[in-house]
Amino acid sequence: MASSEFSLIETHFARRAGTGRPDWLKLGIGDDAAVIQPPAGRQLVSTVDTLIAGRHFPENSESMSIGWKSLAVNASDLVAMAADPAHFLLALTLPEVDEDWLSRFSDGLFRAAETFGMTLVGGDTCRGPLSITIQANGWVANNRYRTRAGARPGDRIWLSGRVGDAALGLALLQQRVAPDDVDAQTSATCMTALNYPQPRLGLIPLLREQATAAIDVSDGLVADLRHLIDASEVGAVIVRDVLPVNDWLRDRERLDLALAGGDDYEILFTAPPAADVQLQDAAKTLTHDLKLIGEITAEPGLRMQADGKFVDLDRYRGYDHFQS
Amino acid sequence: MASSEFSLIETHFARRAGTGRPDWLKLGIGDDAAVIQPPAGRQLVSTVDTLIAGRHFPENSESMSIGWKSLAVNASDLVAMAADPAHFLLALTLPEVDEDWLSRFSDGLFRAAETFGMTLVGGDTCRGPLSITIQANGWVANNRYRTRAGARPGDRIWLSGRVGDAALGLALLQQRVAPDDVDAQTSATCMTALNYPQPRLGLIPLLREQATAAIDVSDGLVADLRHLIDASEVGAVIVRDVLPVNDWLRDRERLDLALAGGDDYEILFTAPPAADVQLQDAAKTLTHDLKLIGEITAEPGLRMQADGKFVDLDRYRGYDHFQS
Repeated sequence: MASSEFSLIETHFARRAGTGRPDWLKLGIGDDAAVIQPPAGRQLVSTVDTLIAGRHFPENSESMSIGWKSLAVNASDLVAMAADPAHFLLALTLPEVDEDWLSRFSDGLFRAAETFGMTLVGGDTCRGPLSITIQANGWVANNRYRTRAGARPGDRIWLSGRVGDAALGLALLQQRVAPDDVDAQTSATCMTALNYPQPRLGLIPLLREQATAAIDVSDGLVADLRHLIDASEVGAVIVRDVLPVNDWLRDRERLDLALAGGDDYEILFTAPPAADVQLQDAAKTLTHDLKLIGEITAEPGLRMQADGKFVDLDRYRGYDHFQS
Repeated sequence: MASSEFSLIETHFARRAGTGRPDWLKLGIGDDAAVIQPPAGRQLVSTVDTLIAGRHFPENSESMSIGWKSLAVNASDLVAMAADPAHFLLALTLPEVDEDWLSRFSDGLFRAAETFGMTLVGGDTCRGPLSITIQANGWVANNRYRTRAGARPGDRIWLSGRVGDAALGLALLQQRVAPDDVDAQTSATCMTALNYPQPRLGLIPLLREQATAAIDVSDGLVADLRHLIDASEVGAVIVRDVLPVNDWLRDRERLDLALAGGDDYEILFTAPPAADVQLQDAAKTLTHDLKLIGEITAEPGLRMQADGKFVDLDRYRGYDHFQS
């Protein structure tokens, strides 16, 4: 029975999920479903993301990073809603039972779960082409969630961390950028950004207090900013020279990677000018940068201010699973 | 943009999901996550199941049935917990954008959703080998859920509907059973059981009121009864001649298909003898059979009474994704 589905789940997931079972978890892995006690006065925030080998991560990715990233990209969606990450379900499809692969995958997954304060409550395991679907849930005080809609003309546009590192990491991995072209330190940072994205949990209280709209940057900065302004029915101007990118990407020929690359899992949000000081103060206590990159406009459309001119950003297209 | 991921989701899912949006759905498809208001005094019951082409349904299955079945197998898990089905998320991986396929798939999915009283609240669409992961959620009054544990010696064992029809349907489809061997009416019933399983929603109040333990029969009657007695730390005896199977399967050489076939999505539950009359009365008002098939024993192990003898059922193995 060493390779049976049930012992596999038991060995790698159920036991580890069972440690330190929280009060709100009435019934965890092992029955037909999990049972969860909703905290009083909270709304449930739910998202699902699938990661497929060869599309969302290279076929030969280290399985620890696949485990980490699968949960991180979902937690990032919860952060964008200003929800506290809580519990998740895992649907894992594997071409074969490889104990080493699974052990490292679950290491990455549970390391992420501990870091984000999340508990695995259920799952399903099948044989098939490698793919990981995680359905993640968080809680938010009634009606205190944030959405893509709500940005108003005059609002500032804020961006956490740095964009383009993951896209440059992937370009290096796929040898679309020559390794010698990028210094070792930058390469290492970019590979970490690609394989171990960090959901910006520290932003959750700030988003609840200050943000008028928020989105996580997964499709690319331009594509996701467009989603936000479309949902909010406004326009936006961003300022090229203040965009948080690494030195290599700063070159205008390379900036596309940062604008359209995707896989950043940074948080893009808007807040009224009255929040500037509080956000700048809060930024000092975060583990990542928080930059003011532009402004919401009443005039529709998305433009970038660069070299004293405004560049129309409509030519940029984000990553689209059915067009790339 | 006709084939882009976003317009695809919009066309086939978001619009249909948006009709008749319930009060408890604060935010549906189209943002980073959905927001749901938990009903007062209820616990959240959550499950996830993946269906993979060539494993959980034949590669050439009609996509309407794939849509129906994907949700039905998840709803059946919720029924087994005595939870009222409420909302679900869909992670759909498709090899290509085929409008006809998608249209029929969503027909089946939403027909199932309407039938089961469920609302699609979010999803993710990717390109890759065909697979459907549904994460389904229900609500149950605080601590009124049922689990696999709780069966006590002397409890009756009840089974809804009929087992083996789906397994015989698959055997016919795969020509492991010759078409001429089975009459046309039985064949048709079995194909419907395989492609359009019916979660036993009518049992939910009965399970809450009477059941000591419950499980849905997906791995096969014997395998799932073993899960129930293992979780309850008891044994069981079932009676061969009262098992609800079609006439073709009644032959003892063929009964294996009913005992170990799986894919039944019937509900197996236990209740004390004091509930017999109430359950028999209730059975008259259900759309399906409800049969008393055996008894829970203090003595461990799973046995079948047949021809005046007891047959040890340990030789039966349920469907296991990594062993078949």
